[in-house]
Formats: sequence, C-alpha cells, structure tokens
Amino acid sequence: MSFKSLIRLSLDSPEHVLCVLGTEICLDLSGCAPQKCKFFTISGSPGVLVNIHNTGPVITNEEAAANQWSLSDPMDVLIKMTSPSLAIDGDKVLVSYYQPDEEAPMATAELYLTGIAVSLDVDIYRSGQVEMASDKHAKKNWVWGPSGWGAILLVNCSPADMGQLVDKKTIKVFYSEEIKNLSQMTLNIQGPSCILKNHRLVLYTSKEESEKTRVYRPQEDGSSTFELVLGPGRHTYTFAPLESHLKETFYVEALEFPSANFSGLISYSVSLVEESQDPSIPEALVHKDTVVFRVAPCIFTPSTQMPLEVYLCRELQVQGFVNTVMELSEKSNSQVASVYEDPSRLGRWLQDEMAFCYTQAPHKAVSLVLDTPRVLKLEDFPMKYSLSPGLGYMIQRTKDHRVASMDSIGNLMVSPPVKVKGKEYPLGRILIGSSFYPSKEGRDMSEALRDFLYAQHVQAPVELFSDWLMIGHVDEFMCFIPTHDKSEGEKGFRLLLASPSSCYKLFQEKQKEGYGDMPLFEEVREDQLLSNGREASTINQLLADENMRKQNDYVEKCINLNRDILKTELGLVERDIIDVPQLFCLEQLTNVPSSQQSEKLYARPYFPNLLQVIVMGKNLGIPKPFGPQIKGTCCLEEKVCQLLEPLGFKCTFINDFDCYLTEIGDFCACANIRRVPFAFKWWRMVP
Amino acid sequence: MSFKSLIRLSLDSPEHVLCVLGTEICLDLSGCAPQKCKFFTISGSPGVLVNIHNTGPVITNEEAAANQWSLSDPMDVLIKMTSPSLAIDGDKVLVSYYQPDEEAPMATAELYLTGIAVSLDVDIYRSGQVEMASDKHAKKNWVWGPSGWGAILLVNCSPADMGQLVDKKTIKVFYSEEIKNLSQMTLNIQGPSCILKNHRLVLYTSKEESEKTRVYRPQEDGSSTFELVLGPGRHTYTFAPLESHLKETFYVEALEFPSANFSGLISYSVSLVEESQDPSIPEALVHKDTVVFRVAPCIFTPSTQMPLEVYLCRELQVQGFVNTVMELSEKSNSQVASVYEDPSRLGRWLQDEMAFCYTQAPHKAVSLVLDTPRVLKLEDFPMKYSLSPGLGYMIQRTKDHRVASMDSIGNLMVSPPVKVKGKEYPLGRILIGSSFYPSKEGRDMSEALRDFLYAQHVQAPVELFSDWLMIGHVDEFMCFIPTHDKSEGEKGFRLLLASPSSCYKLFQEKQKEGYGDMPLFEEVREDQLLSNGREASTINQLLADENMRKQNDYVEKCINLNRDILKTELGLVERDIIDVPQLFCLEQLTNVPSSQQSEKLYARPYFPNLLQVIVMGKNLGIPKPFGPQIKGTCCLEEKVCQLLEPLGFKCTFINDFDCYLTEIGDFCACANIRRVPFAFKWWRMVP
Repeated sequence: MSFKSLIRLSLDSPEHVLCVLGTEICLDLSGCAPQKCKFFTISGSPGVLVNIHNTGPVITNEEAAANQWSLSDPMDVLIKMTSPSLAIDGDKVLVSYYQPDEEAPMATAELYLTGIAVSLDVDIYRSGQVEMASDKHAKKNWVWGPSGWGAILLVNCSPADMGQLVDKKTIKVFYSEEIKNLSQMTLNIQGPSCILKNHRLVLYTSKEESEKTRVYRPQEDGSSTFELVLGPGRHTYTFAPLESHLKETFYVEALEFPSANFSGLISYSVSLVEESQDPSIPEALVHKDTVVFRVAPCIFTPSTQMPLEVYLCRELQVQGFVNTVMELSEKSNSQVASVYEDPSRLGRWLQDEMAFCYTQAPHKAVSLVLDTPRVLKLEDFPMKYSLSPGLGYMIQRTKDHRVASMDSIGNLMVSPPVKVKGKEYPLGRILIGSSFYPSKEGRDMSEALRDFLYAQHVQAPVELFSDWLMIGHVDEFMCFIPTHDKSEGEKGFRLLLASPSSCYKLFQEKQKEGYGDMPLFEEVREDQLLSNGREASTINQLLADENMRKQNDYVEKCINLNRDILKTELGLVERDIIDVPQLFCLEQLTNVPSSQQSEKLYARPYFPNLLQVIVMGKNLGIPKPFGPQIKGTCCLEEKVCQLLEPLGFKCTFINDFDCYLTEIGDFCACANIRRVPFAFKWWRMVP
Repeated sequence: MSFKSLIRLSLDSPEHVLCVLGTEICLDLSGCAPQKCKFFTISGSPGVLVNIHNTGPVITNEEAAANQWSLSDPMDVLIKMTSPSLAIDGDKVLVSYYQPDEEAPMATAELYLTGIAVSLDVDIYRSGQVEMASDKHAKKNWVWGPSGWGAILLVNCSPADMGQLVDKKTIKVFYSEEIKNLSQMTLNIQGPSCILKNHRLVLYTSKEESEKTRVYRPQEDGSSTFELVLGPGRHTYTFAPLESHLKETFYVEALEFPSANFSGLISYSVSLVEESQDPSIPEALVHKDTVVFRVAPCIFTPSTQMPLEVYLCRELQVQGFVNTVMELSEKSNSQVASVYEDPSRLGRWLQDEMAFCYTQAPHKAVSLVLDTPRVLKLEDFPMKYSLSPGLGYMIQRTKDHRVASMDSIGNLMVSPPVKVKGKEYPLGRILIGSSFYPSKEGRDMSEALRDFLYAQHVQAPVELFSDWLMIGHVDEFMCFIPTHDKSEGEKGFRLLLASPSSCYKLFQEKQKEGYGDMPLFEEVREDQLLSNGREASTINQLLADENMRKQNDYVEKCINLNRDILKTELGLVERDIIDVPQLFCLEQLTNVPSSQQSEKLYARPYFPNLLQVIVMGKNLGIPKPFGPQIKGTCCLEEKVCQLLEPLGFKCTFINDFDCYLTEIGDFCACANIRRVPFAFKWWRMVP
C-alpha cells in the first residue's frame, strides 16, 4: 500500500491506498465505467472530503454525494482525508455507475483508504502560535509583507550562552524566561500502528543550515532540561520506531543573524520512509513535509524613538554629565539610568563601539547590545554585567579597529521612518559613514560590518561621506530629533546639520551689534585649551582668521554633499532640516602609530560639538559650546534654543559633555541609550 | 565656488555657485528680504529652470517669472540647471523684492551660477540604447518587473576569450560582432575649462565588483582596439586632466554569472573632485554619479520551445539515430543539424554534461553551451569547435563527477511557463534531481551547481526525487511536449510521466486478448540482450514475474511522489499529465570503483526508455521499445501513438536510440538541441 496522487478505480478489485492528511488525490472514475453507464454517484466515509471540480464552483461532500453526475462531463474528482484512520482500510470511497433511466447501479467500485497524519508545523501566520497550515505548499515559502506568511526565528544572544556555540553538549537547561525566546515547531504523526511501525521518521535540515541553528526537545521527565536534536554537526535526527501517534513540540533558535553569506532562511523537513520488508526492494519515501523559518534581523533604533534605559559610565571627571543625563532620563520617563564602573575599557569608546538594537518575532522581542570591540576579551566589558535581565549581547567582529576607525558600530546612525518617491521605509534607513570615493588614505567601514548591515534587509543602508572627520562618524555632523508633528507635509522629525556658514553668520551679526571683542572659551581653563590646540580668541579674531574660514568652507562642502544625499535618499525637503551653528578646524590624525601618520588633514569640532545631542524625547542634552557670552548668555546656546524651543524642545547644556575641553585624556562622557522598538513589525514590510 | 543644495541669498554680495546639471538647489529668499517687502519676483537665464512648489501644482519658468509672489506664503523655490554654462558665472538668477503697492523693486539679490554636466549613463530604460536618466536617484537602483528599470550586462562567454580571464593585457581587439555583446556606458563632462581644469575625474567600482567585470574604451585611433579601463586587479581609473568637455563611451562586460556569492549587481561611479590649490585644505568631492547594472542570468529552455539547431555526435553504431534526427530537424524547420566527430569524449556524456542556454540583455541575446565536464581540459571537447559562430561556451565546475553522477547539468530539466496559485513563472521552473531526504548512500547535485541554478533567480528551481534511478537524471521518467493549445484550462503543453502500472495494464489487456505468449525484444540480438541482463521474455512471463512486479511497484511509488510535487509546484492537474507505459528493473550500480560499490539497488528502464524523447515541435523522436509485436505492430509503440497522435504529434521510433540495446559499450546516441529563447524578457518578471 502506498501513497498515490492519481488513483484509477477498478471494478474487479478494490484499491487500497495510503493517504496523508491534507494531500489531494485525483480519482479516475471513467476508466473502469461499464460502457452503457452514463452516470455515477460518489460518497466517502466521514474522514474523507470529496471535491468535484467541473466548470462551476467546487462541489463538496454532501452535495457531491446527493447528486448523480454525468460521466461525459469534463470534471476532476479529488479526495482529501481530514482525519487519520483508526485502522488499516479504515476509510472508504464508493462509486456507483448507472445506466440512463435505471434506479439501481449497474456496477460499483470501491476504494479503501488508510489516512495518516504527517505534519510539521510552525507559526506560519505570525500570530505567536503554532498553527496547522491548510496549504502545504505555503509552508515551504516565506513571503514578506502585510499579507505575507512564514515563521520567524530569533537569534540566541543571551550573554550567558556565549560559550555554547562550540559546545557539543546535547542536554541543556533552559530557564522558563529563556525558552520563550525560542520558536516552536510541532510534529504530529497519527495513524494505525500496524502501518506506522513499518515506517521510519527523519527530521533534518541541510548541513549548512544546521550550523546556524539549534533544535531542542523537552526531556520527557517534565523538567526544564532539553535535548539537542539538530544543531552544528548534526543535521539529521531519526526518531525511535513509531507507535500509533507521535506529537512533539520542538524549540528552535538561530545562532547568527543574516549576513552576506547567509540569507536568513532555514528549512526543516520531516520524511516518512517506508522500510522495505524485502531486501531486493529499496526503502521508499512516503511523504515529506517542509517548513521554513526566516531569522529575524537586527534592527537599530533612531534617536527619535523614546528612551527606555540609559547606561552611563561613572567617571569622576564627568560627574556633571552623569548627573544631568540621569535627571533628563527621569524627566523623559525612561527607567532610571544605570551607572556602571569601567576601569579598563575607556568610556569614550563604548558609545562608539556598541549600539543597542533589537530583534523581533511574533512571539517575542529581544533587545540586545551589538558590540564591535577593539579587544575581543569579554572581561573588557563591564557594562555587560550591568545589563538589565533579558537583554542580549552579540559580538560583531570587525577587521580594522585602530583609533579613529570607521569600522565600528558607532559609525552608523538610523533615520526615522521615511517615504522616498513612493517607497516606504517604515523602520527608517541606516546611515553609514564612508570615504565615498577611492583615495590613497581613504578609511571605510569593513566589508564584513557593512555586509552585515545590508544583510538585515529592513533598514536599507545609505552611505554618507564622513571620512573628512577625524573620528569619521556621521553623528559628528548630524542628528535626528522627534517633533511628533505628523500633520500635512510634516514628517514627525527634524534633521539637525552642522553649519559653519550659519555660525559665521551668527558671529557677523554679533560683531555688527558691537560684541566683536567677546571671547570664546571664557569659562575653560587655559591649560585645557592649550592641550587641545585652542586659544581664547574673540569673535573679531575668529572672523579675521582667513585660514579658519577656508577650512570651514571645505567642511561646508563636505556637509553640503551629505545634505544633498540625505535629501535624495530620505526624501527630505529643506524645511525638514535645521542648520546648527558649528565650526570645525583641520588637524592631522592624532593617537595613531607613526607608520599610519600622514599629511592628510581631518576636521574636528572647534568648540564642543552642538550636534552630539543626547535625545530623550523633547529633552535634549547638548555639549556646552563655551561660546561668546553676550549679556550674560552664550550666543551659541541662545541660537540653538531659538531654533529648537519653538518646536517644543527643552535644551540642557552640559559642561563636561565633550571630552577634549573638560579634562586632558581619554575619559569622556558616555551614554548608551536603549530606545523603544518600532511599533511596526519588520515582517510586514516589503524590502 | 562649490556645489550647495541650499543657497541663502544676500543683498550685499551676489552668491557664486557651481551647479551640476540635474541636481536641485533650494533657494532661501526670505532670509535677506528687506523688512518692508512683502513680495518678490524671480527670473533665471535660459539655462536655469526655476520651480516654485507651493500648496498648488508646481510652477515652472515662464509662469514663475511672470508673477509676483508673496514672501509670507509657505513655498519652496528650487532651481535646476539644464545646460552647462559657457563661462564661469555664465548663468544667473535674479530675485527682486517689492513693497506693497510699489512698482519698482526695493532691493535685488543676485545668484551667479556655473553649470557643469557630470553624467554617467547606461541603458537604464532597457531600450537597447543609452539614455540620460532624468532621475539621478533611479540610476542607483535596479528594479525588476514590467515597470522596472536598470541596465543589464552580458557575461562574456566567447569560446575564444576563455584564456583572457587571467590575462593582464590592457589592449584588446574586438571584432565588430563581439563588441555588440558589451553594454555601453557613456560619460559626459561639460563646463567652462577654467573650472574643470582644477578638478580630477575618477571612474571606479569596488574591488569585489572589479573582479567580475571588465570596462573598455575605444582607442582614439578609430581602430577596433580597446583599452582595458577597469577589470580584475584595477578598480579605479583616473582620467587625464580635464578640458572643457569630455564625452566617452565605455563598453562593459561581465565575467561570471550570478552565483551564491554574487548577487549579479555591479555599480560604477564617477566622482568629480576639486583639487585643492592650498596645501592646508584637502581636496573636496564635488559630485558623484552612480549607475548600476545587473548581470543577465543564464536561462534554460524547455523541450516545448522549438529547436533552432541540433548537434549530433557521429557514431557508426548509431548512424540510424543520426539520420533520423537530421530528418526530424529538417521537418521542424530547424537549421540543418551539425554533425561532429568526438573520439575522446564519449557522445553519451555530452548530452548529460552540457546544456544549451541563453542570456539576454535589451541590446543582445547570446546562446551558449553550459558545460559541466568530467575532464576540465578543453581539448576534450570537439563539439566546441563545431559550434555556430556567435555561440558562447562556459564551464561550470562541479565537485563530484563519477559515473552516474547527479552532479551535472544533465540532471536538470526546465518546465514550460506555468502559473502556480497566482504566481507567474513566465520562463518556467528548473527541475533538479536529488536524493530528497538524507540517507547513507544519497547522491545529490553539488551545492555549487545547485546554488548557481538558484542564483539565476528567474526560473525558481524545484527539487525532484531522482536518486532511485541509476543515472539519477529527471529526464529518465518525465518529458514535456508542446501542444500549443492555450484555450481555457489548457496550458499549452503536456507532461509525459513514466508509468509502470499503465504498462502492466496494457500487457494484461494484451494477455486477455490472447497475445500472452508474444515476446519482447524479438528484433534485438541475443548477445546484446544478455550483455544488458535482459531476456526475451513473453507477456505471460513478465506478468508472472512477482519480483519484477514488486520492483515496479517501488518505481511507481517514486514516480508518484514526483507526480505530487510536480502538480503542486507547477500547478498541474491530472489532465496535463499523460502516463506513458514504461517498465523498470532494479540493479546495482555499474561502472563504479569497487570502493563505491554498495548493496543499494537502482532503477534502469527495462526496455528502451519511451520517456527519452527528442522533442522537435510536433515531431517526436522516441527510442524504439522493442515491445511485443501484435498483428505486426509493437503494442508499446501503438499505445504511445494512441496517446500522442490525437494531440497532433508525429512519433518516429528510432532503433539505435537507446544505448544498451544497440551495441555493447558506451557509444550512445547523443543530440544536443539549441532551442528558441523565450519571447518573454526576464527583466520584466518579478522573481
């Protein structure tokens, strides 16, 4: 007895067929019909669904059974089983053939069916629950979009689990919270045991895919221990000999995010193989059921999302910064900031080397830290041990991590959701800093990190030109702030761009008003200024400095180029952009080995960078610029307030935010902010 | 002077701005307006396009110049240049500010523009011609579908060019026909020479992309020699110092088809860099223009496409086959078949190891042979030297090429165009034979070849179960034939499937009719039969052979499994399928080293395989099955004719088609058929 997709009925002897639930079998009724017969009736036992496809709508069970059908009409008669049979030949289809004008059938053909259930199921409809797919075909595909389908896997980024990637243990204890991150996959086999006992059941994936995922099943003792069924080095699993039914729930996790060499799609199949009782006949595959998962991408949040948690590195030198940010975070209703000590990894780099992001499946969303560390030793990362419970941690190795490197996660920013020439980016777009055109000394993000960002698919990256900056990070000349105004033509945010020309314009106005001899940096100690190559110049001196002017013309060109790209790629218009006064000056790379030293000049903010804003909703923490004091107020601060306060923002200027004007050395203000994930679910977009 | 995307006008001094044609510049007019002024007028010189965006429709040049506009209305004033300036400051925009009820302007602001053209262009609209894209943004994207856009590259698969991949030569001679395969890319730079001479122009791609393509430019001497500009090992090209204009056409070719590690997308950028006159200021990027190509995929043609050319291997032992196929090809109006001699590579394997396919761009379509050779030495391939002019040749290396291997291009078939649950496959789907579930002795196509087929994107592969067959190729149990009937519910083709049960049914009928003692293989010499493990059995003997019956039950199960997959994945119904009587028998693998020998049994056709049809439109060349002669006619041939002739097919049975019943050894009938490419253009589909 075997499965068939076409059955030719015969009058002589009844057919015996194995029928896997949900698969359609076509009946050839006319082949065996006696010559004189022109009509037939058809009926099935309760577990059998009879479908008649003729030129009209599909006719099912009761109506099909109630009618006499003409043998000469073109039609397809399809049967499907809806529940497993209790015994061999437990279900039946009866076809009776009639001559015209005769009440009694002239002949009958019988079909005996043994229905078995073989089904591998996942959360195909993205409801957070495993559901049986009515359409076997759909389970093998994964479709993006609001009317799409296909299940989703989360990457295990539990900090405690880091070491397990190379571990060959087959038993694992999961905490009840942890197991909720895993996607469920259920296997259901049902049928008469005398049939099933001659079959072998195998669960498998490809070798490549097995390296990227792990499948567990709970131990039968009801404890929280799980057996590793599939994973790195084991891509097939053969079940113990089958009884009359088997119903198991598996728990699946991914081990890595999509990347250049990994699309993120993972398939699992279950095959039911009929073992041959005769050595001269090979075993035969009876049925194969396949499901596909997509590994959820790593999603970054823009500064326009509300903060959830703030992590601050305690530094005596920036105690004012830490206190102010804690106050701001309380005002913005985010959870109280978490302050940690970090003696070995300097706070400065934390903000540049790690980013909070999240990953999401219908059943669970997980926030995590993506780390691109200079040093790969985990001991170097005390913040990890301060993370709130449930937060994940993932290392993304980078190639080139010298000082001022562009090869770190700090060299990216995320735009708020935008619509560009009709195309929606509901999760915004990633903005990567790059050298933008080939040149001798060009610095870039490594292919590996860049490819990783592109491979996430849902926040299509845009490359910006940032190699003119000493640190090279895009956050030095731009920032997004949330306006929450989504009325006609408003996008709900503004883009702040550094603008040397608007700074010159401001200083010229102040000069005209007679404040030309007011100095910058009045409140900064002279030794601090000197060690940073700054002088306490006046407005007049600054405006008279031709070299400074030329340097800032160059910077303006670099920012203009990015302004043009940002307008095109994010669909912005001028009124979405606010020019923030900021001067730069050009210097040679510092802190690099002499072998890497070059003549090339890079831009650094001349006064503390007004663009490096800590955005907490409407509360903005901004480095105090130490600009010229006019009537007791810094004119730069005043200008920034004039620009932002009408939009409802509250600006707090922080003395010890920017590092090089506070204390000598590397100790620097550092805040890592975890923000509210997007309400929009990534699988509902069409990338 | 530099490019700006926002210009703030000033009354004091006119602004001087460099403007790249096609880029939009936003004007801030209100910032400098005298306080009492409420209105303004704006006009530009002929090369300047003025656009006013207010709440109504966009207003351009003449209307914009004819009106007075209110300064208090919200509006965006955008300018764009449409032709390059003849001199520095050669174009101009004039804004005049008016008080209410005054005729004469109170003040004017001037803007001097120097327009330069910097444009890299390709056949973005897929017309076969390079066209200037009005939308700079669109050039960077490549969009599938009937309303999509983006240029296309062909892979250089010229047989004579094979060695050049590793060649570092920078000059190449192209024949006029050859150069037509390359895609054109034009570069246009125009502007006042005193501006351009301070700029550097660089054409480039990424290192990775440069390994996969070559860009040439014609030598200035007007000959057919071309200079290699970009290619493997050279990803940037800096042009000679610029004059007032530069207009060049480049010719681009790809070196490889898309694959697992190559999406097929290739970008080229041109950057205009302003060289700094002052050593303390770095050079500045003025403009970057990027175009993207997609490398055309390799497309396979199903047997339902009409033949164009037939290549036959001359073998004395199969002279009848060669003659018959030549006759059939003449009947089907295909060009006269080409017969070549092949002493070293046995004809048998040619058909299994190579396939005709084609690749297409809007400007050109190229047919090629995709070869998966057992031996990589080109000398082993005489057919290459018989190929018609213009036909390409490409080697696709495979991993595992033992006899009976499934790792060759012969282990695929292509379906005709199908529509499955609403999804269109206008170029059909590739059908790959595989082991289908993990087992000890499973044989599969290598990842490399399978990945290559998936990466072509346009003929989404379906995996079938073929590892039950000795050779393991899907063409042993199925074949598509063209009916050209596209009426209601008809798909324009039929699928032929091997059917042991329909063969048993036929023989049972003949037994009932009293022909049970008619023998098979009557016309075949006994030594040939013996060497193939066959006997001249009668219908009665065959029907009484229980072992034979069990073996064919097993084969039927294997084919049924594929029938179910084919119905689901190609959207077929039973009436699209024709069951062709065919018996199989199970044997151990032959021709393999003893180390690879196993107990496992594989299926071989019992009599010459009726499914291995040479399809030439309505003319079918079919192996003569040597079945039981009844009333002077072979009942198998008669049955096949009964099935196919009503559909308009003409069946010709060929004595020496199938190898193992003609002569001992490997010499085998072999025909490679090049078929008409699909009329449908691959870039118009949405994969």
